[in-house]
Amino acid sequence: MTTIDHQTSLDATSGLLKRYRQVRDFSERIRQPLSPEDCMVQSMPDVSPTRWHLAHTTWFFEQFVLSRDPEYRVFDQAYGFLFNSYYNTVGKQFPRPQRGLISRPGLADILNYRRHVDSAIEQRLQSQEIPAELLPIIEIGLQHEQQHQELMLTDIKHVLACNPTCPAYRRAPLADATPLPPLKFVDFEEGIYHIGYDGDGFAFDHERPRHRVFCDSFAIANRPITCGEFLQFIEDGGYRRPELWLSLGWQTVQQEGWNAPLYWIHEDGQWQTFTLAGRMPLDLNQPVCHVSYFEADAYARWAGCRLPTEAEWEVAAAPLPVSGLFADRLLADDKAIHPVYQGEGDQVLSQLFGSVWEWTSSPYTAYPGYRPPAGALGEYNGKFQCNQFVLRGGSCASPSEHLRATYRNFFPPHARWQFSGIRLASSPSTSNDR
Amino acid sequence: MTTIDHQTSLDATSGLLKRYRQVRDFSERIRQPLSPEDCMVQSMPDVSPTRWHLAHTTWFFEQFVLSRDPEYRVFDQAYGFLFNSYYNTVGKQFPRPQRGLISRPGLADILNYRRHVDSAIEQRLQSQEIPAELLPIIEIGLQHEQQHQELMLTDIKHVLACNPTCPAYRRAPLADATPLPPLKFVDFEEGIYHIGYDGDGFAFDHERPRHRVFCDSFAIANRPITCGEFLQFIEDGGYRRPELWLSLGWQTVQQEGWNAPLYWIHEDGQWQTFTLAGRMPLDLNQPVCHVSYFEADAYARWAGCRLPTEAEWEVAAAPLPVSGLFADRLLADDKAIHPVYQGEGDQVLSQLFGSVWEWTSSPYTAYPGYRPPAGALGEYNGKFQCNQFVLRGGSCASPSEHLRATYRNFFPPHARWQFSGIRLASSPSTSNDR
Amino acid sequence: MTTIDHQTSLDATSGLLKRYRQVRDFSERIRQPLSPEDCMVQSMPDVSPTRWHLAHTTWFFEQFVLSRDPEYRVFDQAYGFLFNSYYNTVGKQFPRPQRGLISRPGLADILNYRRHVDSAIEQRLQSQEIPAELLPIIEIGLQHEQQHQELMLTDIKHVLACNPTCPAYRRAPLADATPLPPLKFVDFEEGIYHIGYDGDGFAFDHERPRHRVFCDSFAIANRPITCGEFLQFIEDGGYRRPELWLSLGWQTVQQEGWNAPLYWIHEDGQWQTFTLAGRMPLDLNQPVCHVSYFEADAYARWAGCRLPTEAEWEVAAAPLPVSGLFADRLLADDKAIHPVYQGEGDQVLSQLFGSVWEWTSSPYTAYPGYRPPAGALGEYNGKFQCNQFVLRGGSCASPSEHLRATYRNFFPPHARWQFSGIRLASSPSTSNDR
Amino acid sequence: MTTIDHQTSLDATSGLLKRYRQVRDFSERIRQPLSPEDCMVQSMPDVSPTRWHLAHTTWFFEQFVLSRDPEYRVFDQAYGFLFNSYYNTVGKQFPRPQRGLISRPGLADILNYRRHVDSAIEQRLQSQEIPAELLPIIEIGLQHEQQHQELMLTDIKHVLACNPTCPAYRRAPLADATPLPPLKFVDFEEGIYHIGYDGDGFAFDHERPRHRVFCDSFAIANRPITCGEFLQFIEDGGYRRPELWLSLGWQTVQQEGWNAPLYWIHEDGQWQTFTLAGRMPLDLNQPVCHVSYFEADAYARWAGCRLPTEAEWEVAAAPLPVSGLFADRLLADDKAIHPVYQGEGDQVLSQLFGSVWEWTSSPYTAYPGYRPPAGALGEYNGKFQCNQFVLRGGSCASPSEHLRATYRNFFPPHARWQFSGIRLASSPSTSNDR
Repeated sequence: MTTIDHQTSLDATSGLLKRYRQVRDFSERIRQPLSPEDCMVQSMPDVSPTRWHLAHTTWFFEQFVLSRDPEYRVFDQAYGFLFNSYYNTVGKQFPRPQRGLISRPGLADILNYRRHVDSAIEQRLQSQEIPAELLPIIEIGLQHEQQHQELMLTDIKHVLACNPTCPAYRRAPLADATPLPPLKFVDFEEGIYHIGYDGDGFAFDHERPRHRVFCDSFAIANRPITCGEFLQFIEDGGYRRPELWLSLGWQTVQQEGWNAPLYWIHEDGQWQTFTLAGRMPLDLNQPVCHVSYFEADAYARWAGCRLPTEAEWEVAAAPLPVSGLFADRLLADDKAIHPVYQGEGDQVLSQLFGSVWEWTSSPYTAYPGYRPPAGALGEYNGKFQCNQFVLRGGSCASPSEHLRATYRNFFPPHARWQFSGIRLASSPSTSNDR
Repeated sequence: MTTIDHQTSLDATSGLLKRYRQVRDFSERIRQPLSPEDCMVQSMPDVSPTRWHLAHTTWFFEQFVLSRDPEYRVFDQAYGFLFNSYYNTVGKQFPRPQRGLISRPGLADILNYRRHVDSAIEQRLQSQEIPAELLPIIEIGLQHEQQHQELMLTDIKHVLACNPTCPAYRRAPLADATPLPPLKFVDFEEGIYHIGYDGDGFAFDHERPRHRVFCDSFAIANRPITCGEFLQFIEDGGYRRPELWLSLGWQTVQQEGWNAPLYWIHEDGQWQTFTLAGRMPLDLNQPVCHVSYFEADAYARWAGCRLPTEAEWEVAAAPLPVSGLFADRLLADDKAIHPVYQGEGDQVLSQLFGSVWEWTSSPYTAYPGYRPPAGALGEYNGKFQCNQFVLRGGSCASPSEHLRATYRNFFPPHARWQFSGIRLASSPSTSNDR
Repeated sequence: MTTIDHQTSLDATSGLLKRYRQVRDFSERIRQPLSPEDCMVQSMPDVSPTRWHLAHTTWFFEQFVLSRDPEYRVFDQAYGFLFNSYYNTVGKQFPRPQRGLISRPGLADILNYRRHVDSAIEQRLQSQEIPAELLPIIEIGLQHEQQHQELMLTDIKHVLACNPTCPAYRRAPLADATPLPPLKFVDFEEGIYHIGYDGDGFAFDHERPRHRVFCDSFAIANRPITCGEFLQFIEDGGYRRPELWLSLGWQTVQQEGWNAPLYWIHEDGQWQTFTLAGRMPLDLNQPVCHVSYFEADAYARWAGCRLPTEAEWEVAAAPLPVSGLFADRLLADDKAIHPVYQGEGDQVLSQLFGSVWEWTSSPYTAYPGYRPPAGALGEYNGKFQCNQFVLRGGSCASPSEHLRATYRNFFPPHARWQFSGIRLASSPSTSNDR
Repeated sequence: MTTIDHQTSLDATSGLLKRYRQVRDFSERIRQPLSPEDCMVQSMPDVSPTRWHLAHTTWFFEQFVLSRDPEYRVFDQAYGFLFNSYYNTVGKQFPRPQRGLISRPGLADILNYRRHVDSAIEQRLQSQEIPAELLPIIEIGLQHEQQHQELMLTDIKHVLACNPTCPAYRRAPLADATPLPPLKFVDFEEGIYHIGYDGDGFAFDHERPRHRVFCDSFAIANRPITCGEFLQFIEDGGYRRPELWLSLGWQTVQQEGWNAPLYWIHEDGQWQTFTLAGRMPLDLNQPVCHVSYFEADAYARWAGCRLPTEAEWEVAAAPLPVSGLFADRLLADDKAIHPVYQGEGDQVLSQLFGSVWEWTSSPYTAYPGYRPPAGALGEYNGKFQCNQFVLRGGSCASPSEHLRATYRNFFPPHARWQFSGIRLASSPSTSNDR
């Protein structure tokens, strides 16, 4: 982050301004189908109200960019406490599990707050008066907002699913699917590979430093696992057989009474699933999603395979274009935010990006030589490197411009409210078992 | 309830229609200062969102009055599940602690629901076509709605108090106070007294049957305890001395870290209190409120007195007019919903009604010979006769037409989000200690 | 307690010495069938290890009698913290839920502690050197120890029931039963009755003062409800019908998954019950026990009756002799500690004492004019007068010399590890329904 | 495990017999200072009673070795349920958090159980009649018992520490210390290293397969961090500065109120520590132990360093002899089970083995190509590969014959009741900061 080599030329600044407007606008487009009341709800501690996301992303710019300018007038002193997420360096935070209890400022006030901050940022970008070292901070702010755009979608899905009337975020058809190819494995040679980011564009601190890893030869599946394939696991007693599960996973299955992915509903002998477009019959050819690491791991074990490491995943994905189903494109095409299977031409490995995040077997740790940035932004990623697993590739709820092969997402192993799915891998010694 | 001798004459029905409109309208007046977002919040399981109160009181009429009419078209089938509170006889209920998670129907839908039900009830009352046996049910529905009017006010106070910006429900001055008389005790003779209701008006099932109780001679205080008097208890270490507390009360003090009544704030050496009109300096002459039974009982012990039994309270209150500070009058006078001291002319016992509910030492039990009504309305009171204490008199958040000397309110001993206060009593053998 | 008019004559002191030895000895006889390891276990926070009971009852004498004598040498300073139960006035207490974590002092040390204290008390009683005002404290200590004798038996039953091997406390046959008479009700007139203790013997503070109560006419059942009668309730869906339960009771049924009294086991279509003599087939003619207040209340409602108030119970029991099944007699006769039905000659009301504690509908409150004694012993009863219900009569686990018609026991409404059962009552207006 | 190349010759069998007796005997020597009551206590769910360890390790031989022999008579059918830890493949288990509630079988019964199983195993080993494939299972049983020997010591320390009288397991002096060298770092070159086990001796499944890893150049500290060094962290506000902690670690610090390692006591301005030899003044030159991963990680961050990865640790340790302070030697020398600093001659890297387990920064995962063994023993390690961190080297509570450089121990990041300490590492780019 601090190592971003940023061009402070006119071009760069005006490019940033354009991008600033696009990203900020997209957050409000995501909000658009929701009522002020929808934007209030926090359905579990991990979920934040939509309104909180809209305010927090704005506070991020105010705190890390504008507040360094003595001429800037803070919109409301109370917001620093209300909308700081977890930056202890900057100050105390309103308790996370209580975000849904705050009705004031109202959504209208928060939209005014956005106006206030946007106008201050835009004016500074337009007038070229902004110190060069703040430009990369604005970029981080935009990347940060894109992360929250995905959370707005996954959180509101969780919120609406609590409502027994099954309301839709937005009624819209699914994107078109292509025929599903049979599951195959693509082989990779053993060797020392480089992973991590060292390009000129943006990357988060934890994608660096680029470094060497040794990988044994491995094979990775050509596509994600489908709902139909996962249903076979269920029907084979997958959720009732402790030998398939990690010990903590089996505890979770029993405590939570899991017997299918989140949002699956078994009623009158039929499987349905709750989506952002409302309840739908389960389409067996679509990628399974809303599974936890525990379920992904148990499925892989049941299938005689394993999950890929994050290094393997990156080695496989590095040469491929970042294309697929992403939130911005789905909204632009007036399609539902939901994964469907789409092959990618004659590319053997398909759907690595978009559609569903893919759980890797790698616990989320620091890369060798990693150092978090100085100051509050050092709290962005590093302090979460414990009891989480890495996911790769992005989902149908991610904005398309946000992703790359080195991108690392992470969630605890029990989390399943993200659009998270499964891609299998295997080691050569085990390939014959398949 | 079933014993109400109801006149089904034209007069009675048109009186009921007028009352129906008044009561229903008052709920919406209470809502008026709140945004749709304010109406969403459930700040603890005991609190319900304002919108839920508005819908539930409407469902009560739909379920218990209209649904018996085959011509009535139910507004929305889902509402029966969403807005049933605890009537198992009628059907399952959406889990109480999750009422704040439901953003749809929105407030506008709920107001339409009110219109729909109101028009059906009003039309039936106007046309005189309503079966006579439903008229007392409508009356119960109105009494029920008045109870929820008080809850709307106490719940929204709790909701707003969670917000670190301390927003006001409605900025308004306090009602005028009169000079505070010294604390005195009024004596009553021993004897067999009658308590409970047997008049011709409305009373809840648990106020019946009127029955005999033997009371030893007793004395009861002329007015409620003030904030200033309670502050002496605090300053005397009241919250740190286990010998003053019930065992469960002392546990609660320690677990919850209580050191003052709810909503009291000690900052920079000054006491303030959060009110429905925002933060205010504590006025030492006003009745203390938002104390639990535990605190009322500990205060009485510290003061060398005790709380009155509910029989004693009723004996003292029976001859007095039901006057005082009530929510409807405060709103009509554009005053804050908050208790202040108001003497009642030359009446020695003052402020028994309105201002603050007064904790009695009586656990909430059935009167001798009590039988709950048949059917779902039998769940109204009787099933709560366990681990609660009776409060008497009404508060500044109660509607004035709702109360009488036989009225019984009840809450668990730890509850303190109601406008609940303290009136002392004593037994003759202990009177000398005072 | 402070009002006990105690004879300090030689006779009285030597009578007390004899009684001291008997009571202290009986505690150790209760312990005798248990290994040091059995005496360690605390199976839930409400249960204390047997060893703790043996030490705590000893500490009671050391603290309240011996420690006032400057010549007395405290056995171990640490015991005051370890074995104080809840006397805040005396000092801090080791946390109750952790009593089972303390293996040292061992049982042998605790028995030595008993020897040390017994010898000091006995020597003072023998030498007549003890101050007269301590004699009633010794009496309280003995009554206190008798209460713990019952707890030792009920607690060890709970402890052994946690063990899947179903070990017995002591294998012994049940006492002989007599033929079961049909259930009948005995009528009592309305009137002002006196209840509470004012005799010359021992009574606990909360049995005083004797006072007047008005009772409507009532009827009370001739005997407790049997297992067979309770089984009809079960088979009629009693545990699945919310309309029969208090609201808190229904919550408890669902959270705890109750479907029968504690210790009942349904296996292969047969009902068995765990007893202090091991597992046994359920005998339908024996009094049902190990039911909570919630279950007693629900049963009474299902039966179209109610539970008696404690005043009604005392009015009915006052003229009767205190006879029945008690722990000391059962142990002396080498019979199991378990209730069986035993009629009492031509006495119509049978089994009021012993066998099972009988839940009354009365919340546990102070009698009018009650004042707890000064000092630490004021914490004995008064501070528990909240969220508990009164039980009357004693059980097969109570020592016989400990009880009287005015005796008040109390437990929270969900408690069921005591030998607690059901006697029905009814009001005249409802007598015809039976 | 399945790959152990086992000699079934006479020599091997008689060697195994001798070892069997030694290992089994050592468990009972650990138990020897404890009373039957001490052996009962489970002070938290992670801790098991000593008696349970003695029975469980015996059950392991009965279940996995003896029960395959049709002539073997099971000692008690109930033990399979009571003393199975977590092997779902074999059957259900008594709930772990309730192990402390079972007083029967008593310790004497459990020692008889040990006799019964020992005699059956020894007889089969002596007569050479045992099937060859069972010999490696016996070896696993012995390694398993050694792991429980360490747990017996760490668990009983936790148990005794709950007792406010601070009882000692065994009064004994500390082992002799040597002068403490200054903290230095030893450098290692980058390269592909092999880690994991592929020798002929015993190793657990998860130490295999031996495989290649790429390590950047790194440096590792010459000795563990001492109490004195850790005290500087405390005095520098280490436990009050969120920026030093992982997010989960900081949550834990606040929830648990941590302000020093487990068992440290700050009283009257002095630091003491609870040890298996009772309370002792803190010796600043001894290795700090009973720190969690969170504390180790925060300390390293504060010190401008990091923890080693498990690969780095193994690379550094591989050439060194497995010598140090171990439980069997300490007991044999009549010294306390407690770490002290002991240099190892002219060896630069000291105390890698024994003394304290060293937290690595590596989450516990499967090695590439790892497959758990078939059957119930496949549940031994693999299913715990989630939310745990690897520790290396062994402690003063480990038996000396149990360890090697490839040995992997693992605990969740909040665990601190093990003898776990800190060794620093650093990356070359950061070496200059030191």
